Amino acid sequence: MGLTDDIDVVLCDVFGTVVDWRGSLIRQLEELSGRRGWELDAPLFADEWRRRYGPSMDEVLTGELSWTNLDDLHRASLLALLEATSIEASPEDINDMVEFWHRLDAWPDAPDGIRRLTKRFIVGTMSNGNVALLVNGAKHAGLAWDVILSAELAHRYKKDADCYRENVALLDRPLSSVLMVAAHPGELEAVSKLGMKTAFISRPMEFGDHGQTLPLDQIVDFSCEGFDELAAALGV
Amino acid sequence: MGLTDDIDVVLCDVFGTVVDWRGSLIRQLEELSGRRGWELDAPLFADEWRRRYGPSMDEVLTGELSWTNLDDLHRASLLALLEATSIEASPEDINDMVEFWHRLDAWPDAPDGIRRLTKRFIVGTMSNGNVALLVNGAKHAGLAWDVILSAELAHRYKKDADCYRENVALLDRPLSSVLMVAAHPGELEAVSKLGMKTAFISRPMEFGDHGQTLPLDQIVDFSCEGFDELAAALGV
Repeated sequence: MGLTDDIDVVLCDVFGTVVDWRGSLIRQLEELSGRRGWELDAPLFADEWRRRYGPSMDEVLTGELSWTNLDDLHRASLLALLEATSIEASPEDINDMVEFWHRLDAWPDAPDGIRRLTKRFIVGTMSNGNVALLVNGAKHAGLAWDVILSAELAHRYKKDADCYRENVALLDRPLSSVLMVAAHPGELEAVSKLGMKTAFISRPMEFGDHGQTLPLDQIVDFSCEGFDELAAALGV
Repeated sequence: MGLTDDIDVVLCDVFGTVVDWRGSLIRQLEELSGRRGWELDAPLFADEWRRRYGPSMDEVLTGELSWTNLDDLHRASLLALLEATSIEASPEDINDMVEFWHRLDAWPDAPDGIRRLTKRFIVGTMSNGNVALLVNGAKHAGLAWDVILSAELAHRYKKDADCYRENVALLDRPLSSVLMVAAHPGELEAVSKLGMKTAFISRPMEFGDHGQTLPLDQIVDFSCEGFDELAAALGV
């Protein structure tokens, strides 16, 4: 019970942990492509777009590219990806596609589980998504965040330690009072080194059938199947 | 109806507009002073503390003082104020008093009215309060903000135009799509010049019986008695 008593804040990774970005992108790509009569392999397109996410952030992390928010990185990746296809997307289509990331559906357990957690904790995002994306996304998916925290507020992407430090500093709490929730062991390992508490949520379908990630027992304080189970584990 | 259609975001001044800072400070000052056996004129003390708020922000606005968040300005004002009294406040008492500003009660119409507005609009704070103060305050008062925007995110206090510009930029919306809600005509006049829409909410008791502010008809798009009336005027 000591562990739970120390926690005051629950911060959540969003893409993959709270929302099903892949299924939501595929659904929206299929809708748009159907309306436009494009020949588009939506799952492949979604995966290729997402594959450019890490490398695009790395350019910002290394300083090769000055601060650029995620909408703009998504746009640049999309333009590069479209160049490699025969799809004729209009400027309006491209704007719409960038905003697909503002309309991602939550995993079924997330909205109610997050709402339960807010009864006892300060619950927020801790995402590489920019603020507008996260605010619009919360409206779309019905997520009752107490606070939107974002790489955009620190001008540093995760998993740069200063991204976590600067966002948590806005809450005026110690890192040790914060539970970070993510479906990605690498992020939990990084925040564990900063003294944050860690919860792994299993999302076996995040990448479709491309294989799933597993928790690292030695750094995870909680491991669960969804936000409802996490809320129960935290006694809410 | 055109005016309402243009609005996508509702941002609210907090102190005085959403919460009764004066009544809440007096209540908390009386409780603490009763427990400590202090001879303290709570309404006078609250008014004196608040009177130092504008001048302390002015030091930051002019650059005389580097960026300092509101908790720290409140602390400095409090220490100066305590020096002028015979009150013997411990360091714990002082921390507690600074946090009085994190536990302000809402005006009765605010929680439900704000919740109604969130059904149709992105609804957020636009306050000189720092993020931690606003997040804790929302929990205390039951305010369902979609997003916490603050002078702290821009490192500029209201009514510096860049404070509004930088916060609204985080939402990736034009200033003209934002309705600013405040009980203070001066603030509405400033944001009106930036192209924002304006709603005046009358709070005749904000300063107790020290007189009340009145709307400036020429710059106010909506004028109402509370958030419930504003929600109705906006068709929610």
